[in-house]
Amino acid sequence: MSINKNNKKDSILKNRAIKVIPGGMYGHQNSSNLPDGYPQFMESGKGCKIWDVDGNEYIDLMCSYGPIILGHCHHKVEEAAVRQQNLGDCQNGPSKHMVELAEKLENIVKHCNWVIFAKNGTDSTTICLMIARAASKNDKVLVAKGAYHGSNTWCTPIKTGTTLEERKNIVEFIFNDLDSVDEAIHKSNNQIAAILVSPFRHDSGFDQELVDPIFAKGLRERCDAIGAALILDDVRCGFRLNYGSSWEPLGVLPDLSAWSKAIANGYPIAVVTGKEYLRKHASEIYVTGSFWFSAVAMAAACATLEALYQENSISKMEKAGRLLRDGLSQQAENYGIKIKQTGPVQMPYLSFENDSDYHKINLFCTEAIKRGAFLHPKHNWFVSSSHTESDINDVLRITEYSFQRIYENFR
Amino acid sequence: MSINKNNKKDSILKNRAIKVIPGGMYGHQNSSNLPDGYPQFMESGKGCKIWDVDGNEYIDLMCSYGPIILGHCHHKVEEAAVRQQNLGDCQNGPSKHMVELAEKLENIVKHCNWVIFAKNGTDSTTICLMIARAASKNDKVLVAKGAYHGSNTWCTPIKTGTTLEERKNIVEFIFNDLDSVDEAIHKSNNQIAAILVSPFRHDSGFDQELVDPIFAKGLRERCDAIGAALILDDVRCGFRLNYGSSWEPLGVLPDLSAWSKAIANGYPIAVVTGKEYLRKHASEIYVTGSFWFSAVAMAAACATLEALYQENSISKMEKAGRLLRDGLSQQAENYGIKIKQTGPVQMPYLSFENDSDYHKINLFCTEAIKRGAFLHPKHNWFVSSSHTESDINDVLRITEYSFQRIYENFR
Repeated sequence: MSINKNNKKDSILKNRAIKVIPGGMYGHQNSSNLPDGYPQFMESGKGCKIWDVDGNEYIDLMCSYGPIILGHCHHKVEEAAVRQQNLGDCQNGPSKHMVELAEKLENIVKHCNWVIFAKNGTDSTTICLMIARAASKNDKVLVAKGAYHGSNTWCTPIKTGTTLEERKNIVEFIFNDLDSVDEAIHKSNNQIAAILVSPFRHDSGFDQELVDPIFAKGLRERCDAIGAALILDDVRCGFRLNYGSSWEPLGVLPDLSAWSKAIANGYPIAVVTGKEYLRKHASEIYVTGSFWFSAVAMAAACATLEALYQENSISKMEKAGRLLRDGLSQQAENYGIKIKQTGPVQMPYLSFENDSDYHKINLFCTEAIKRGAFLHPKHNWFVSSSHTESDINDVLRITEYSFQRIYENFR
Repeated sequence: MSINKNNKKDSILKNRAIKVIPGGMYGHQNSSNLPDGYPQFMESGKGCKIWDVDGNEYIDLMCSYGPIILGHCHHKVEEAAVRQQNLGDCQNGPSKHMVELAEKLENIVKHCNWVIFAKNGTDSTTICLMIARAASKNDKVLVAKGAYHGSNTWCTPIKTGTTLEERKNIVEFIFNDLDSVDEAIHKSNNQIAAILVSPFRHDSGFDQELVDPIFAKGLRERCDAIGAALILDDVRCGFRLNYGSSWEPLGVLPDLSAWSKAIANGYPIAVVTGKEYLRKHASEIYVTGSFWFSAVAMAAACATLEALYQENSISKMEKAGRLLRDGLSQQAENYGIKIKQTGPVQMPYLSFENDSDYHKINLFCTEAIKRGAFLHPKHNWFVSSSHTESDINDVLRITEYSFQRIYENFR
């Protein structure tokens, strides 16, 4: 295995970026939040292989922070996108693909009777709140403390530049803790529009936590009891855990769901799905965007949903994710290193015992990135259905070195 | 000239859409807000010609409500987009095009020292507010009554589903009326983060109003005096009026600008540009989106900005727009029909005297759409640089019939 070393072009671009982009970069793709050795600027991707601007090759376990689910540049998705691009993308009205995609989602997603499309995951979560408020005539929304639901003013994790008023109607509870939900309901004087929740707890920088089925069912019961909408934020998990809404396997259906990321294998689209009783209210709010009706991302989404089904992608991701988890577990054991692996296997999160300053995981990732595995120290990773057994074994050959370095540095 | 008649495929799609999309469609591209004869679903576009799903051809004077500025499917933009698409779009980091595009904007736009990219025009206006609030530690934002600044909860024109608190810090003034601005400042107790304004008044359903240079300068002076940011919402006008910020010809530079629509000739991107003193504050807020770093739209934007310059596009749009305005004026005069044409010639708005119920303009547009001119009864139109003299003459041959029908029906 070769060690990635050259970062000349990346350095030059970073030096140029610092002059024209605040802080040199912003948001979740800001590489200055990552340990040493990570590139900022990417060149290309194919399947689960990606290349940075200096030509260094990586096996991609971030999948563009979620959007890539079939692998980069999937031929069927690209074909559908190119076919539509040659006709038109942003036009005076949507293309037929808008209807096809809405019908597909209505078929696939159990609670879905209608669909609204947008561009950002944040658009979707915000639209869900608007619809729930229009329906209930209430303002309060319950959200889990620490959960990420986007970067609009009511939800961005850093409050700078937002007003107190914009968060005034957000009431917090603790994920997987129904008592805290009851407390939040009590505090809200029965003026609750919705409970907004992620399929599992995937807060950045923390071990992940799968949902307790009793918690999921408890939220459903409470929403029914108080006349609030249950909103599932499936932006990050959607179509990685289940071919449908992520809580369907638990028998819990939300009233509204927010989706984005993986729906079109990287093409920009966001989706709101909802139950019949909210259709009228969904048509009463006014939301729109210059590119929300664009055809290419919708054609790509249709192709993505078909390919996910035809290629049995979720099973593939589970298999690859399981292989990775078992392999990492074995390696850690061999070195006598205590690790935690949390969340679904296809959305892995790795942490080390006694590592609250992230020194171990940072070293682990630094060693991995320089040998060609693109992991993340504080964000869950993403497996795609393009990851084969061989790819995962390549990753494990790399992580063997990472564990060795942890062993050497932290005894 | 043939009359567009067949709408079979459009009807079938509409009947399918009503089942899976609330109200059958939403937002600004909802054709149920348009008079008879408009298609909902589009097939393709090339230059200034567009085709609906039934194969009816139109000369496009809406340009996808703004994004198309060089004409549909412009070869240089498409080449740049395809080249990047073959490499990758949404990756683990941005491509080199992000830096190139930021540098280009910094070169072209006088007040621009740094750039943030997003997806929706609404993202851009919201980010401007956040930065202004972060810088000033004030919450109040002054906006012109009736102005459209996007569909986030603080600005959507229909308040259903939003909370009172989300608008609590928005204070209104009247466009072109400095007294009303002073009143709004007084009302806000000097706690003003920003004044947000469009380059000219382009409220939907009303005659447009160019900015009085004294008003623009007055806003600049007041912002300086009270330590607020002047934010120009150039989402709709950007790069159609001026190759740079829209108030540069007046000598008035904003502190922040929101852009989107035409920047990438239809590819989805939004932009915030700002002055040096706000750079630090721009890096303090947290905003991001899954597709904000995607490479294709940035490559397309670079190509669009180059082509706009090389092809002298703004002059071309002005020339075509002037030809259209003069032609419509002459036709109206010939029939003795009183019309108003307002706003810049490349963003025309047509209205009829004594037409508060829009009956005349609706008939005008219905007659135009069936003969192949895609106009809009309540929204400003958009000229692109692909509109030739011959195209405008074709439009005028069509509008001749429209005026004739107005003459016959409203004497």
